Amino acid sequence: MNNVIDTVLDHRSIRHFEDKLLTDEQIKTIISCAQSAATSSFIQAYSIIGIKNKEKKKKLAELVGNQEYVEKNGHFFVFCADLYRHTVIGENEQKDVIASIESTEKFMVALIDASLAAQNAAIAAESMGLGICYIGGIRNNLEEVKKLLKTPERVIPLFGMAVGYPKLRTDKKPRLPFEHVYHEDEYQQNKEVYVQQLQEYDKLISSYYEQRTSGRRKDRWTEQMANMLEKQNRMYMKEFIEKNKMNLN
Amino acid sequence: MNNVIDTVLDHRSIRHFEDKLLTDEQIKTIISCAQSAATSSFIQAYSIIGIKNKEKKKKLAELVGNQEYVEKNGHFFVFCADLYRHTVIGENEQKDVIASIESTEKFMVALIDASLAAQNAAIAAESMGLGICYIGGIRNNLEEVKKLLKTPERVIPLFGMAVGYPKLRTDKKPRLPFEHVYHEDEYQQNKEVYVQQLQEYDKLISSYYEQRTSGRRKDRWTEQMANMLEKQNRMYMKEFIEKNKMNLN
Repeated sequence: MNNVIDTVLDHRSIRHFEDKLLTDEQIKTIISCAQSAATSSFIQAYSIIGIKNKEKKKKLAELVGNQEYVEKNGHFFVFCADLYRHTVIGENEQKDVIASIESTEKFMVALIDASLAAQNAAIAAESMGLGICYIGGIRNNLEEVKKLLKTPERVIPLFGMAVGYPKLRTDKKPRLPFEHVYHEDEYQQNKEVYVQQLQEYDKLISSYYEQRTSGRRKDRWTEQMANMLEKQNRMYMKEFIEKNKMNLN
Repeated sequence: MNNVIDTVLDHRSIRHFEDKLLTDEQIKTIISCAQSAATSSFIQAYSIIGIKNKEKKKKLAELVGNQEYVEKNGHFFVFCADLYRHTVIGENEQKDVIASIESTEKFMVALIDASLAAQNAAIAAESMGLGICYIGGIRNNLEEVKKLLKTPERVIPLFGMAVGYPKLRTDKKPRLPFEHVYHEDEYQQNKEVYVQQLQEYDKLISSYYEQRTSGRRKDRWTEQMANMLEKQNRMYMKEFIEKNKMNLN
């Protein structure tokens, strides 16, 4: 164990921040760290938009479903998959890159690239004593978010990240059992064992909630997941991505 | 600056490893760190397969295109998007989760989740003095990779990660200019400025190669990208993912 690992293991989402903005230097360090992440074949297929403008932050908070911490934080980042850059490059280099850019493969590459960068940013921020929260809610209304952030075609805002000085630290929720997530040599498909692991985890999560709510809540994880997935959410996504000329072929 | 940030900034891909395996404890720490990453609505939509079996490693190295470091390393991880787990949950909880699971939105969620976890694993490994290299090459032949790793439907191997004790340290390639990747308040679409930034970066990359190859190589980044994207690569991906019942609607 070392203090990098301590930082990584100590992660929890922070949703209440002090009224104190990040400095430009802090922002620059966070972005440098993001950019240090590995990138598939050096493609660097992402962009990051930092929101300073108060009105814009307020509007964004509304768009994600009135999440106060999108407005009230030290800084708000939006991580975008970006293949617009490579479209411009194709034009300038006079090479036909469009079939590649519109492929599901490159859509995946851009998503992975942006996510690796984001997690580096998260860890850098946390190492500076800041808290972070990923905001998937920006995908609730991407049409409006894109208008607000003026992102061109082939730039998809994937998630936000609120960063700031933590006011209220939450607990860390226990994760799935090691044996359930980590497989040796091949995926373990013994369904009996698989389901048993989920049941054990259900007990753990259930008692986690029970303890923290004086018995008011004791939902199981699989119950939570089934309820969440039963609701169809952001089903416009396929059409939206295709309209932005990605994930097409 | 602190030593977490130092670790993050010091990343480079390592492709030559000492002949020394990771201990089970090291593997466990790396996986714990991976699992500590944020996960969208607590969905935990990924799995990690660690390859110990020598024959399997060898076969995998062949499948990715004879990359020696896939076979010769301290350990090899495969990060997978995993919505099989949630399919099983839907069955057991008797909820209809299939439309959600087959959506582009949840495909994106699984990719993002897996990537955040992977980057945590990478940083944890690097903080332990190990080197890492992401291997996108496992997507060259996913049908065969899936057979080898026995992954069920709705589990997509996304990338591998070779981890081990570094034998040869490579240089760190300069990234795109800060101003080109980081936008304030909105995406900067002034094309003249945009292209100018790319040209400046081209000069930087060109001289980076020139210095390191005694003038033999001086390719520009935009040239590299255009050449790479002109070749259509892994164009079977859309069909493959759909056959695995993800990214469908």
